[in-house]
Amino acid sequence: MQSPRRVRELGVVVGTLPTGPLNAITDVPGVRVGQTTITGDGLNTGVTAVVPDGWAETLPAAIAVGNGYGKLVGSTQLDELGVIETPILLTGTLSTFRVADALLTWLLDRDPRATSLNPIVGETNDGYLSDIRRRPLTPLHVHTALDTASRELPAEGCVGAGTGTCALGFKAGIGTASRSVLAEPAHGAGSAEHTVGVLVQANFSGLLTVLGRPVPARPIDADGNSCMIVVATDLPLDSRQLGRLARRAIFAMGRVGSDYAPGSGDYAIAFTTARTPNFPDRDLRPPFQALTESVEEALLNSLTMAHTTTGHQTRTAHAVPHDRIANLSHL
Amino acid sequence: MQSPRRVRELGVVVGTLPTGPLNAITDVPGVRVGQTTITGDGLNTGVTAVVPDGWAETLPAAIAVGNGYGKLVGSTQLDELGVIETPILLTGTLSTFRVADALLTWLLDRDPRATSLNPIVGETNDGYLSDIRRRPLTPLHVHTALDTASRELPAEGCVGAGTGTCALGFKAGIGTASRSVLAEPAHGAGSAEHTVGVLVQANFSGLLTVLGRPVPARPIDADGNSCMIVVATDLPLDSRQLGRLARRAIFAMGRVGSDYAPGSGDYAIAFTTARTPNFPDRDLRPPFQALTESVEEALLNSLTMAHTTTGHQTRTAHAVPHDRIANLSHL
Amino acid sequence: MQSPRRVRELGVVVGTLPTGPLNAITDVPGVRVGQTTITGDGLNTGVTAVVPDGWAETLPAAIAVGNGYGKLVGSTQLDELGVIETPILLTGTLSTFRVADALLTWLLDRDPRATSLNPIVGETNDGYLSDIRRRPLTPLHVHTALDTASRELPAEGCVGAGTGTCALGFKAGIGTASRSVLAEPAHGAGSAEHTVGVLVQANFSGLLTVLGRPVPARPIDADGNSCMIVVATDLPLDSRQLGRLARRAIFAMGRVGSDYAPGSGDYAIAFTTARTPNFPDRDLRPPFQALTESVEEALLNSLTMAHTTTGHQTRTAHAVPHDRIANLSHL
Amino acid sequence: MQSPRRVRELGVVVGTLPTGPLNAITDVPGVRVGQTTITGDGLNTGVTAVVPDGWAETLPAAIAVGNGYGKLVGSTQLDELGVIETPILLTGTLSTFRVADALLTWLLDRDPRATSLNPIVGETNDGYLSDIRRRPLTPLHVHTALDTASRELPAEGCVGAGTGTCALGFKAGIGTASRSVLAEPAHGAGSAEHTVGVLVQANFSGLLTVLGRPVPARPIDADGNSCMIVVATDLPLDSRQLGRLARRAIFAMGRVGSDYAPGSGDYAIAFTTARTPNFPDRDLRPPFQALTESVEEALLNSLTMAHTTTGHQTRTAHAVPHDRIANLSHL
Repeated sequence: MQSPRRVRELGVVVGTLPTGPLNAITDVPGVRVGQTTITGDGLNTGVTAVVPDGWAETLPAAIAVGNGYGKLVGSTQLDELGVIETPILLTGTLSTFRVADALLTWLLDRDPRATSLNPIVGETNDGYLSDIRRRPLTPLHVHTALDTASRELPAEGCVGAGTGTCALGFKAGIGTASRSVLAEPAHGAGSAEHTVGVLVQANFSGLLTVLGRPVPARPIDADGNSCMIVVATDLPLDSRQLGRLARRAIFAMGRVGSDYAPGSGDYAIAFTTARTPNFPDRDLRPPFQALTESVEEALLNSLTMAHTTTGHQTRTAHAVPHDRIANLSHL
Repeated sequence: MQSPRRVRELGVVVGTLPTGPLNAITDVPGVRVGQTTITGDGLNTGVTAVVPDGWAETLPAAIAVGNGYGKLVGSTQLDELGVIETPILLTGTLSTFRVADALLTWLLDRDPRATSLNPIVGETNDGYLSDIRRRPLTPLHVHTALDTASRELPAEGCVGAGTGTCALGFKAGIGTASRSVLAEPAHGAGSAEHTVGVLVQANFSGLLTVLGRPVPARPIDADGNSCMIVVATDLPLDSRQLGRLARRAIFAMGRVGSDYAPGSGDYAIAFTTARTPNFPDRDLRPPFQALTESVEEALLNSLTMAHTTTGHQTRTAHAVPHDRIANLSHL
Repeated sequence: MQSPRRVRELGVVVGTLPTGPLNAITDVPGVRVGQTTITGDGLNTGVTAVVPDGWAETLPAAIAVGNGYGKLVGSTQLDELGVIETPILLTGTLSTFRVADALLTWLLDRDPRATSLNPIVGETNDGYLSDIRRRPLTPLHVHTALDTASRELPAEGCVGAGTGTCALGFKAGIGTASRSVLAEPAHGAGSAEHTVGVLVQANFSGLLTVLGRPVPARPIDADGNSCMIVVATDLPLDSRQLGRLARRAIFAMGRVGSDYAPGSGDYAIAFTTARTPNFPDRDLRPPFQALTESVEEALLNSLTMAHTTTGHQTRTAHAVPHDRIANLSHL
Repeated sequence: MQSPRRVRELGVVVGTLPTGPLNAITDVPGVRVGQTTITGDGLNTGVTAVVPDGWAETLPAAIAVGNGYGKLVGSTQLDELGVIETPILLTGTLSTFRVADALLTWLLDRDPRATSLNPIVGETNDGYLSDIRRRPLTPLHVHTALDTASRELPAEGCVGAGTGTCALGFKAGIGTASRSVLAEPAHGAGSAEHTVGVLVQANFSGLLTVLGRPVPARPIDADGNSCMIVVATDLPLDSRQLGRLARRAIFAMGRVGSDYAPGSGDYAIAFTTARTPNFPDRDLRPPFQALTESVEEALLNSLTMAHTTTGHQTRTAHAVPHDRIANLSHL
């Protein structure tokens, strides 16, 4: 059995921009990730938490809906106010509200005066490999993910909210990537290095495409094809600009072969750790490129880092064979 | 102490169209309402369920967001597919996710094959009169509301999701109203009588205005000013047209004096029990009038049917004195 | 025949906030208005230009669509970029594109390198009193409106884009109003006085309502019921916040009796002359109140400043009799 | 110099679904296309008209905005009512309003009672090769395109609104393609063959990608990168479903290498010639695939059918060398 490898270790280089030090969403200063995984007894599910420093003071954010067949929690307030005020959690479809409620518990414990909070919880349907109707996520699972969030390279593949997900005919899961961009603010001092980081929960249909090459899978009949994309940056963007970024995250799904199926819940949430917007729209091309490359690589990582998994009703999803991907290039 | 009275019993007649037999959302054939109320020990909260026959086969629906400072569950899938696939529940803010999860339980029990469901749960913040941080709603409360839903005139005022809400400086709660309209479909047989029915959970700020007359209150410092409006009809409208109807429900809040405050979560959800759309846009004026009159009267009923309530931290919200409203007219 | 009077001169005081010096959109520093009027020979039409200083460097802006039955030019780019880059013009429906093209000419003359511009042109249908199919607006009319724009109190009633419009059963036209608000930025120095100013082109159906009192008209069968609202401010709001303001402008139409008819094109465009956003959402209540009062008063001014007009096919629209309005109050 | 060839003639087969008889938007029954081309004297521009039978009685339609940096005319009414009521025209940016006004003239001539019309005009910026500031389109050009519209295979490449456009570093222009799909309505008789047809005006940046293979160009510094996509079908979809289709047209741009630049105006307008919606959302996968393949192939045709063009200020855009594309496949 092959060992999980990041796609770059397989000789596949996406795009031209430099990655961050970890090539991960946690390259964005102040962004931490924590995950809890549940496996065994027909279950393959979990929770993934993206925890930016300063969430309690709110951070500029936006959401893009590519195809709204999903149960994402928190969208209308995010649209209205242009901020997140909690960490962002990902999980399996039917656990969404238990996870949202457990996030509330965690938040209420931290703010004894809070009486209104807008948790953000995204989901995809992991019911092919996990007995989704059991809704096994408990508050402890959620709180552990939140409390253990760290600045390290997040685990990828079959972990957290990606434990039971499949994409493009193969076992998939969590993936992450990042890019560095030089950018100059609208007002003030010269250019500085910034980071765009992405974390995905990949669970959608289509034909896997690696640097333009199709890598067909034997089709699997997976319920609920969806993709959650979390985008973090320290660029001083406002909510409207983050929305422009988030829409490109949806567009970038096509680069790995998404067929944007009618039953898919494809969402991107973008936030910035920079609280004072100060960036000209005319200079968004490099951030857009950084975003596109990061999404493409994170999605590939979600596949190459996953391992073959057997779950609910002894269904099996196979990892993509690395030798079908290794050293592919556009040449 | 005055007895709760519907505003029409006080001699206040809103608009010119005839009401349905009950002057309630349950005048729409196939629409039932059930409610569970929790009071005592610093709690004034509950759940209100609007249960249309045929929800399991989906019903055309739309949502309008007047001001999105709310935690409503289910909006993006409703936008994408233009249908509801569950009953609609209303509750207090911090109970939203427990209620959504309890609705899931109820749905999963009824469909042993379901692995994906999009519950619709609206909320307003009843934390002025209820110890909202305790999240007291249990699955049993939710299931009781669903299972006891009936075609009768729904209880109004301090009941269900309105037990702890305040509006326009007074104690408010649940209100309902309806109007009959003659309408002719786009294709086929002649005109027929149809119904537009409304149920509101009133919890917003402003200056109470009855038929144009201001009825000032002593201001109360209530957290979370919001309004949830559920609109039901049997007109053969499609999702887009229901969206046009839902937006007018937001506009109609102004008729009773809403100030559309920046912290308010003002949402309207409209659905139809008619599954085959067949209605010309050019004939929407009567349905729009029916909707506007129903919302205005339902909001007034939510006030005049409420009684003075003392709750969390011994705060009190006073019912609007009926003698300040009785027999007002535009003359 | 009565002389046109502003509604405040008739003893009708809308709201409680202080007006700006002129009680007009031109109270916002740097905002000018110019108008060209065409009458006679079956024509009652024109163009109204709102010209903010600094438009060429772009200004933060947003648009709200209450009911999109209109031909407004420029909305999608405004949504994407959150700015206006030209003055805002209003005119009659079928002249919209001639006016937009004439604005292009004016802009191209001012910038010899420009190859892409996003003109903003709103319209309502003045075909009841004007032979709309003739499209009589020429570039000269448009350029005159732009070039004569001034900081003075704009003419109201039957002038410019309001020459041929009717509202609520009466002759209407252009109206304007403003309010002062004390506001404190999110960061930095203490509070300062700011202005919210509004200009309307009123042309919609419903039951005229003055401070809550209905003032019925004999119904007139006017094609094309719509309302264009331009909102200017010097508050340091971003595009998202201006969108929140613009939506309240739509809501405020209900205060004078709009029935939000299905065939109405109801739009509000809000912009700020302050280029660096710096305002907390939690403090938006006073700006919202200033906006609501300004829209209500501007709409009333559009009526009381209009005079009885006979136009195309000898149709007549009557001015609202001032004695039916004078000295009304909420008491 | 190579002769223009459709990409399929070059041995490049996009997707797996069968094309319509012409592999063109005009395969959709009742859809005609007419074009007027202006060249010489520094001009390379024109107008392209998509004329569906029955436009005067309105046809269900929707618009998707991928990136709203464009001047498209007609979007808000299309959003509100879910229909088009005129043919759809494409042209160069600064001619948009002259073209819209000329369309009005043509419409008013055909309906002596019309006083309100919502023309649909899309545009991209052809200023790299055409002296755009001259706005050379006259009513005669527009009316000729409308009056000569035919059911034949539309001319592609440097014609009509594509005369001066460039994409992915090469000369581009108009392209078209179609696919057949078997589909079964929601209610009633069995499955039947339907068509999805696409026409594009290609004018955007990125790295040309043919079946996954990059085909780099020497970069050209073209102003105004945009893409207009018109989608026609005879599937009985409603406006909401057409919106879902239109969004996939934006997603499909990525398949040929669009970089979705911040300054691009990327719009898709989808309409159906079937007036009575009757199609289940769960069966949209084949129409989505048909749409995606059609957009990809139409975009490639817009390139391979174009010829090297020298225009304004003796700038030249080169046609893509066919030998760099011929016989590419995914193998």
